[in-house]
Parts: sequence; structure tokens; C-alpha cells
Amino acid sequence: MPLSHAQTHNLMPQPAKLSFGEGKLRIEPTFRVALSGHKDARIQAAAARLISRLSRQTGMPLLTQIEGNPSRAALTIRCERAGEPIPALKEDESYRLEVTPEQARLTAPTALGVLRGMETFLQLVEVDGEAFTAPAVVIEDRPRFPWRGLLIDPARHWMPIEVLERNLDGMAAVKMNVLHLHLSDDQGFRIESKVFPRLQEMGSDGNYYTQEQIRALVRYAAERGIRVVPEFDMPGHTTSWFVGHPEVASAPGLHLIERTWGVHDSCIDPTREETYAFLDRFIGEMAALFPDEYFHIGGDEVNGKQWNANARIQAFLRERNMKGNHDLQAYFNQRLQAIVNKHGKKMVGWDEILHPTLPKDIVVHSWRGQKSLAEAARQGYSGILSFGYYLDLIQPAWQHYQVDPMDRDAAKLSADEQARILGGEACMWSEYVSAETVDSRIWPRAAAVAERLWSPQEVKDLASMYRRLGAVSRGLEWVGLTHRSSYTHMLGRLAGSTAIEPLKVLADVLEPVKGYARGRARRYTQQTPLNALVDATRPESEVGREFAGLADRAQMRTGLTLWRDNHARLAPALERSFLLRDAAPLSQDLSALGAAGLEALDFLDGGRRPSETWVKERLALVDRASQPRAELLIMVVPAIRKLVEAAAGQGR
Amino acid sequence: MPLSHAQTHNLMPQPAKLSFGEGKLRIEPTFRVALSGHKDARIQAAAARLISRLSRQTGMPLLTQIEGNPSRAALTIRCERAGEPIPALKEDESYRLEVTPEQARLTAPTALGVLRGMETFLQLVEVDGEAFTAPAVVIEDRPRFPWRGLLIDPARHWMPIEVLERNLDGMAAVKMNVLHLHLSDDQGFRIESKVFPRLQEMGSDGNYYTQEQIRALVRYAAERGIRVVPEFDMPGHTTSWFVGHPEVASAPGLHLIERTWGVHDSCIDPTREETYAFLDRFIGEMAALFPDEYFHIGGDEVNGKQWNANARIQAFLRERNMKGNHDLQAYFNQRLQAIVNKHGKKMVGWDEILHPTLPKDIVVHSWRGQKSLAEAARQGYSGILSFGYYLDLIQPAWQHYQVDPMDRDAAKLSADEQARILGGEACMWSEYVSAETVDSRIWPRAAAVAERLWSPQEVKDLASMYRRLGAVSRGLEWVGLTHRSSYTHMLGRLAGSTAIEPLKVLADVLEPVKGYARGRARRYTQQTPLNALVDATRPESEVGREFAGLADRAQMRTGLTLWRDNHARLAPALERSFLLRDAAPLSQDLSALGAAGLEALDFLDGGRRPSETWVKERLALVDRASQPRAELLIMVVPAIRKLVEAAAGQGR
Repeated sequence: MPLSHAQTHNLMPQPAKLSFGEGKLRIEPTFRVALSGHKDARIQAAAARLISRLSRQTGMPLLTQIEGNPSRAALTIRCERAGEPIPALKEDESYRLEVTPEQARLTAPTALGVLRGMETFLQLVEVDGEAFTAPAVVIEDRPRFPWRGLLIDPARHWMPIEVLERNLDGMAAVKMNVLHLHLSDDQGFRIESKVFPRLQEMGSDGNYYTQEQIRALVRYAAERGIRVVPEFDMPGHTTSWFVGHPEVASAPGLHLIERTWGVHDSCIDPTREETYAFLDRFIGEMAALFPDEYFHIGGDEVNGKQWNANARIQAFLRERNMKGNHDLQAYFNQRLQAIVNKHGKKMVGWDEILHPTLPKDIVVHSWRGQKSLAEAARQGYSGILSFGYYLDLIQPAWQHYQVDPMDRDAAKLSADEQARILGGEACMWSEYVSAETVDSRIWPRAAAVAERLWSPQEVKDLASMYRRLGAVSRGLEWVGLTHRSSYTHMLGRLAGSTAIEPLKVLADVLEPVKGYARGRARRYTQQTPLNALVDATRPESEVGREFAGLADRAQMRTGLTLWRDNHARLAPALERSFLLRDAAPLSQDLSALGAAGLEALDFLDGGRRPSETWVKERLALVDRASQPRAELLIMVVPAIRKLVEAAAGQGR
Repeated sequence: MPLSHAQTHNLMPQPAKLSFGEGKLRIEPTFRVALSGHKDARIQAAAARLISRLSRQTGMPLLTQIEGNPSRAALTIRCERAGEPIPALKEDESYRLEVTPEQARLTAPTALGVLRGMETFLQLVEVDGEAFTAPAVVIEDRPRFPWRGLLIDPARHWMPIEVLERNLDGMAAVKMNVLHLHLSDDQGFRIESKVFPRLQEMGSDGNYYTQEQIRALVRYAAERGIRVVPEFDMPGHTTSWFVGHPEVASAPGLHLIERTWGVHDSCIDPTREETYAFLDRFIGEMAALFPDEYFHIGGDEVNGKQWNANARIQAFLRERNMKGNHDLQAYFNQRLQAIVNKHGKKMVGWDEILHPTLPKDIVVHSWRGQKSLAEAARQGYSGILSFGYYLDLIQPAWQHYQVDPMDRDAAKLSADEQARILGGEACMWSEYVSAETVDSRIWPRAAAVAERLWSPQEVKDLASMYRRLGAVSRGLEWVGLTHRSSYTHMLGRLAGSTAIEPLKVLADVLEPVKGYARGRARRYTQQTPLNALVDATRPESEVGREFAGLADRAQMRTGLTLWRDNHARLAPALERSFLLRDAAPLSQDLSALGAAGLEALDFLDGGRRPSETWVKERLALVDRASQPRAELLIMVVPAIRKLVEAAAGQGR
């Protein structure tokens, strides 16, 4: 461990090197910032944002004017040189932050490092018994991987621009540096094309980003040291394109925006020259809008059905001696790559694009795992990992946290090959999230991925991660995210005019079903309201995690009693709100589990052995309660099973 | 009572006439709106907002496109004629809303009535056991008073434009129709003047509204049927003007922005012609920016000290045979009125401006009470009431609710005189609120004032008011106000890294001190952080009100036990957060009160009589606990005193 101390802190991602000193810097209402070295508009704006963030965090009315005299400033910032006006891959993000009881001093080679160090400074500030303070510390920090992304998918469910803005602020807070926008899919085309306006006019239900909004968004991201990489998924996942432009489709007829989820048949026709003329103009337009060096063309999940069904396409394959649809897609990608390249960009695509005909400057984006990432690296391609980072699968943070781009096959690569592994991206696919719920699915879990991609590989203590994740989650509320407040709002809607507390007691121990289980029990479309208990419930039950870790039986009894008595308290809400109709069995079971746990503790405390019947019935309850209902899981079931089993096993 | 039914509803303000029918209209994901009659951009935009509000409220992804075929729309809206482009005083705001199980139909003479009716429709929609529904009902509604305002004071503490926007949405939701902006005071000059830029450049710390922002705000308000009345308080309350323009001051020397509260000496020099030349140009500029017919010149709290101290001003008085400063201020107001009038506006001012030399088209704004309102009306002046509606005094909603502009002296006026009483304004003076806390001081209490000014005079049942106030408070969160969410955020800041629940248990039974008590215990300035427990605590303790109303002893025991045990749970937070340093005595006393209440119940339940010592000690505790500490009051003290007294009085 590079840490030279035992002191705890709430920094996430954890810095590369950190060493605590003696004492603390007090943050007073007179707090001011001074700048030296290179000062540009981005640094000035960042300093004003830092002050306003600090003001929100502490509730102190700070003045945002920059202090001219460094000796009078609580925080001095020195930036050596300008850096790139738009952040670029592998640009230096390092910084040094030294805090003494007198002053905090942040230095960095470029504005990017200044931005990263400012976030560290804000995370250092905490309330203590005397004041708001930052501990004396020396931090020398730089990222492990240069590509630390978050994919947001406004195609399946529309995400208004303010959703992206607040998530950019969240990303910056945990030092993520790539926003990957999945701008088109079967269910929606989400950006204005002036060259082909029917794309958004007919393919978006009116929900798309204007070019003006995109330009502002790219600026907003750049100010926070974040690249914006657009994705236009091709040749599959393209139904929404065809509503206005059926001429580029592989199948004839009327095309309608797709309202359901899954892999659909729609596919661009890769055999017609008109297709490439269209894409050349379209990509040219989009390439001008997004200044980043990289351009994502998707390339995933082509099922080939429309190609198989089209005689002209099949004739094209035969004429060129192609062995099948994989070759046809490789041909498409080759043509596409040339177009992307012509417009000054390097191509990024999902695993499926990997093919020896493509030049080495492309980036393979792996949803399949470290094996395909390693394979790409061996062949000389760069790669980023998203396997294991799918936030939509509602896995606990520790699972994402344990996925390392350099593990498994990648660990066996040479150093040169490993250097091609650029990092990774957390993915927020939006089949089951809306603008209202998306923050709660991204945060705080994305911060665990951010740490994996920034901090040294050996930073992996789970208890420390969860403690700091709790702090970062609270901090992100001051940044403007709604991942915590939306919980209360949504519980309020579910409870109608009844008190929300009993509903919160239930929801606090629930988690949504995991993996691809959601949507199996009922049919979802784009119009299905996401206002059920499963949507309000958080991906990780803190109460469940804490209860599982309890050793003290009195504390256990407090929780168990609360749950046992809760069903009666929740009954009015269950009766009055149709939104809670399918929550009743969960609530009943939670009460029964609470009672069973209390009885088990009575047996254990009394050293008495329960009857066979008691054991049988309680284990049946536990079995039933471990099944998902209403797409929800009761997370305290395993702990209560243990209690029942412990009571049953006494003296045997 | 004009109500023809016994059914409860959550409408606030209560409509003038309302009659429930049979059944309910279901709000489905296919919900659409159709428009007929006069359709302008304002109505179209309002319909889109209604759909998006309904979507947030229900969590259903509704499409915002207007339905062309009225028979396919769940809500049809018919507007007879355009109405004024900018809302005007006494414009028709009436509407009729009929809901049947098949359809809702809203009709109104003008767009204003449409806006009011839309808010009623949104308030009707609730979750029930089957669906989101609106009950079958016929509502015929119109306001009692034409002037229903809210004063916001961005001068003492700066309120960024988004604070005003979200409060305009809140005002519209409860049918308030005047935003009174107190744009200048000793502590800040909050609007951009292009004619006299030093006003904002030197008088605002950089915190002011640009003219572009003001134009957008006036449009935003007009779209919601709300007038914006600017106030420039003169000739007193003007320190911030003089920082950049000392030439209009009555006293010589250097002027600095005032940082403390209270009545200060600064006063415009009313004797120099240059003053009126300045005001003519300035008021001309501002009059062009605010399209409303009325222009508020303040006029309150002139202490006259600088006039008395200025020999030239004293000579001016003598030359003109003025009897004193009151005459001088009357002279100033007369000159000012001519200027205001020249620029096309009618003058509004606080009580003090009332003087027979002023024309009858001015409006007297009474902070002194119905007596001065009645006096003005008798003299032929119009008036509005703010006495009794000062939200900054942190009084309970029922107190504001019981203040009626037509009570007391006004009740004795002739009908013609009464017609001059135009309504009133709730006032949010901002000495002790910041952008973070202001929503929680305005809402939901302002809704009680809104009802007083809109609904028939005989609507005054307090239990009904509080029930509906709870519903409107929840509804206002969907509108975007932060009065509830800021509570959790602020408690989180106070608690630092500790759990917020124990702090919430304490804060839930506290209220800030009332009236002008705040600021007596400690010295406040504009830079004092408003991040203490008193700032987080809500103006009205719902828990306190509910506990006082409990009859069931088991329920009492639940609350009392929670409080008794809470101090131990809160101890870590009290120790770790300096922000809670002065909260410890409150927490200790709450625990002691919980224990005392439980003991009293034990005596009562057992029919036993407590010892003299027990009674004496518990009453001493209750006496001590009823004193304010940390500017806070424990609201359950009276109920616990009753329990102690009941226990003590047994068998005597």
C-alpha cells in the first residue's frame, strides 16, 4: 500500500500517494482562492465553481471573487501550462495537493490536474467538533488508466440535457473523464441532424438534443475535464433511423420506432453505395459537432435476419465470396472506418468489430470481458472494458469494484500489450431507468468503478470502499445529483396521502432483482411507467448490509421488532395505493421474518431448542421470502435464515 | 358554506363552488389534452407544462403533443378569448372545471382562468386503490381578491434567479398572482442598471439580476399568470445605492454596503433637483423593464437622522414651512409619484406614504394592519395587506390563515370602500434566510395566505386547512420547490458522517423562535452562515402538532420512548459536529421530557399519585425546557406539561 498512515479519510477515488501531517486547516467564512502560473478562463471558472460548491457543502456564504494576494488565500492554485483546450486521451491529469494548518496548495502541470485536485480538496473538507476543516496532508496523485468513462443511454428512455449536466458534475467529482453518449438505438434517435432532419423529426417523439445543446454540453464537459464520445450504433440497433430514412434499411416497408427491448432485426443495408454516401454526410456533420478524437460506431448485436432475407444482399455476399454475415459486417466496418477517418476521427466499436482488416488505431470496447480485451491488445488494438461495469444489472458496488481491466487474460499480456488497455466505462443502459430514476442507478455505484480505474491496483479493501462510498454518496447530493432525494420523492408518490415512514422501512431492506431478471416477469415497453416500488428501491440495501454485519443481539432485536410491526403500519398505504398492490406479500413476509428472527433470538438467548415444527415452518418462510416478488428481493433473508438455523442447531 | 357535499379533497385554495359527482376519471399513460376556442402560445405552453407536471406527479411517461381530436382527449380546454398578454390587476381569473368518469373539461373566459383551472385539475389527481384518478366534480371558481402576492427580498440575502423561478411555479400552483421583488435595500442593490451601472457594480458584491434575466423572469411569470411588481425602497433603506452614487445621499462621506440588519440612517436627499433628475432616469429605465402597471417605491422606516444632521436639508424645510421630516417625505413622495406617473406607472408604497397630497390611484401597502388599510380606503385609496402575513416571523400557518384583510376596521367600511381593498401579500423578508432555506420558510405556509386571499371568506376550518396544507406541501415538491428536500440535506450537513435519523427525531419536534426573537441572542450579519440547527428546522413541527392532538396513550408512549432514548443515539453527532454544539441541551431536555411523560403515563395508568418531589422536579424541567435555546423551541413541552399536571392532579 502506498499509504503512509493509518488515518481514515473519505477520498474516492483514493489518491496514488497520500501522507497525513499534523493538524488541520480551518475553512472559515473568509475562505478565498488565489491563482498563479497559467490562468485561463477554464481555471477561473473552476475556481468559482469550487467556491460555490464549498459554500453549498458548508452552508457558508462565501464570496467568489479570486484573491489577488496568495498569502491571504486559504487555497492557492498553481497551474504550469495551458494543456489542451478540449481534454484529450492520455493528457496529463496529475496534481499535487499539500494542506497545512495555514494553507492548502494545489499544483498541477495542466488545467486537468487542477480540476482533479480541486475535487480532492472538496472531499477533504469535513465538519468536526471545532469547525469545517481539511486535514494536513500531502497528496501526489495521477490516474492508473487514461480512459474512465460513463455511458449514458438517452435512446431507450429520454434523458433531458439537465440529466447529463448533473451527471457530468458527478463524474468530475470522482475524476471520471469520458461521457459516452449512446445517441441512437431502435427506440430513439436523440440528436438533431440538420443534414437529415427526418432522423430526429420522425425518430424521436420530439425528444432529442439540439446541436446548440450539444455544443453547450461539450463545453460544459470540457470545463470539467471530461471528453464527450458520441455513439451511433450501426449497422444494427437502427430502427429509429429508418422511420425517416427507410432507404438505408436492409428490409423494405414502413418502419416505426421500436417500443420494446431486446435485439431487433433492423439493420443498415451495407451493400449499397447510397448507404455510404448517406453515412459520409451524416458522420461528417456529427464529427464537426463533437471535437473528441474518437467516434463510437457501436457495431454490436447484428442478428443478420434482414440480411439473410434480402436476395440482393445475399447476391452481394456471393459475388464477393463472403463467408457470411460476419464478413459482411467487417466489410461495413471497413467502409465506415474510412469515413470516420476521413472526418478526422478514430473509430471505437464494441467487441464484434474486431477484425484484422481494421487499422490499429481503432479502440475495441469490450462488453464480453477481459479475454476479448486481451485478444485485441495482442493483435495490436487498444481497448476499454465495460464487462462487469453494467450498472443496469443492479449488482452491488463490490462486484463492480472487483472487476479489473488487467485481470484474467489481460494479466498475462506483455507490458507493451497491457499499455493498450486504456481503461473502462461504466454503462447505464436505460431500458429500466427514466430521467427520474437514472441518478439512483448510476450513483454511488459508479464511484466504485471510478476508483477501480483511477487508484492503484492494490487499493481493494471492501470495508474501506463502502465507508468512503457512503461519504461520496452524501457529497454527490451537494453536487446536484438526485440519487438520494428521488428515493423520498418516489416513496411519497407510492404512499399517496399516507405516511411514508412504514414504506421506507420496507423499501430500505429491498433491492431490485439482478442481472437480466427484470422484464422477465412482466412485459415492458418504452411507455411502461417506471413508478413501481422496484423503481424507487435502491440498488443496494444499506440496512441489509448493516444487519448482516451485526454481532450485537440487542441491535438485531431493534431491527427485527421494527420489521415485525411494520406490516400493520403499512396496511393503509397498501390498501389505498394501486402502485403498492404487489408489495403486500413482501411486507407480510418482512413482518413474518422479523417475528421469526425475534423468536430465534429468544431460543438462542434462553439456550432452548425450538420444536421441529417451528424450524420447518420458519425455514419454509425463509425459502419463500428468498424468492423475488414484484421484481424485488428482501435482503435480510440470509441473515434471518442464519438465526433460524442457529436456533435449530442448538445442542445438536 | 358553498360546498354541496361532505367528500374531502386536497384542493388549496378551496374553490368558490364545488360539487362532487359519482365516479372518477382514470389518468392513464395515454392521457392527452385537446384545446379549443382561443389558442395562443401561452395556453399551448401551459398545456405542455401541465402534461409534464402530471408526468412527474404520477411517474407516467406522457407524450406532450396536443391531441387534435377532443373526443380522444382526457382533458379538454376551452378558452373564450385571449385576455391581456401580460396579466393585469382585476383581469378575469374565473374558470369552470367539470370532471366526469369519461373526461375532464376546463373552460374559462381568458388564459388566466385556464391557468388557474389547470392547477386545480393537477391537485385533483391522486393515487387510489385502482389507478391515478380525479374525482367527478363540478367546480366554478373565481378569486375573492384580485391582488394575491408574495414578496421576496433578494436584497438582504441574495436569491439567484432559479430561486425566483421555482417560487413562481409554487405561487402559480396555489393561484397567487403577484411577485413583489424587493430589489434594493441597505444590504444590496440587486438589478442591473445600464444608465447607472455603479449601482449594481458597487452595491451588490456581484450578486444582481441582469436586465436579460429580468426580462426572462417577467415572461416566465406572465406565462404562469403572475404579475411582477418591482420595489425600489426610497428614500430610506438605500445604503447600497450610495456606494456608487454618494451624490444622492443625505450624508456626506464614504458609503459601504451595510452588513447588519435593522433600520439604518441612510436616506436619499429629497431637497436637491439633481436627485429627481437621477430618479427620473433610473425609474424610466426600470419602468421599461417591468411591464406591470404598478411600481413600488417602498417609503418605509425613514428615521430622519441624516435629514436632521444636514444643515442644508434643515434650511430647505424652514424655507418651505415644512413641519418636519414627515412633510419632507411627503414632498419627496409627491415628486416621486409624478416621476413614476410620467413613466406610465401607478405608485405603490408602504403605510408611511399615505398623505392627502397624493392622487387616489396609488396603492397603500399596509404592514401596520387593517386599521391603516381601512383608513386608506376611507380616504379613497386602494390598499393591500401584509400585516399578519410576514413569513419571516416563523408563525404557524393558522395564525396567518386567520388574518383577513376585511376584518376589524375594514369590516366597518362601506361596500365601495371595501372594494378598494385589493388583497394582500405574504412577505419573505430575508435577514435570516438564504437561497438554501428560503423555500422552507415560504412553503407550505404561503399556501394558507393564498387560500385566505382566493377562497370565500367563510372557508376557515383549521383542521381542513392543515390536512390540505400537508397535501399541497407534498405536491409542491413535484413543482420543483426544495422546502422538504432541503431539510434532509441540511440535517445531513449538521450530522456530518453520522446517521441523520437521531438528529431528525430532535429537529422534528423543534421550531425556530418566533417574531423578532431571532437575532436577539446573537449578532447576525450578512456573512453569518445560516447552517445551524435553527436554519434546518421547519417553521411548524408536524410531530408537535400531532402529539398535542393524541388521545391514545399507547401512541403517546411510542413518541415519548423515541425521545427518551434519542439523546444517547444523538451523542456521537453532538460530539463530532461543531454545528450542533449548542443543540446538546435541547437533546438532553427532550430525553428528559420523554422520560417524564412516560413516568406520568405510568402514574395515570396505574392510578397512582406521584411524590411532591417528582412533581416539583418535572415541572422545573418543563419550565426550563420551555425556554428558547439555540434560538429553538421544543414544541412538545406543553403536551408533556399537561401529562405531568394530570399525573400530579390525580385524586386531589
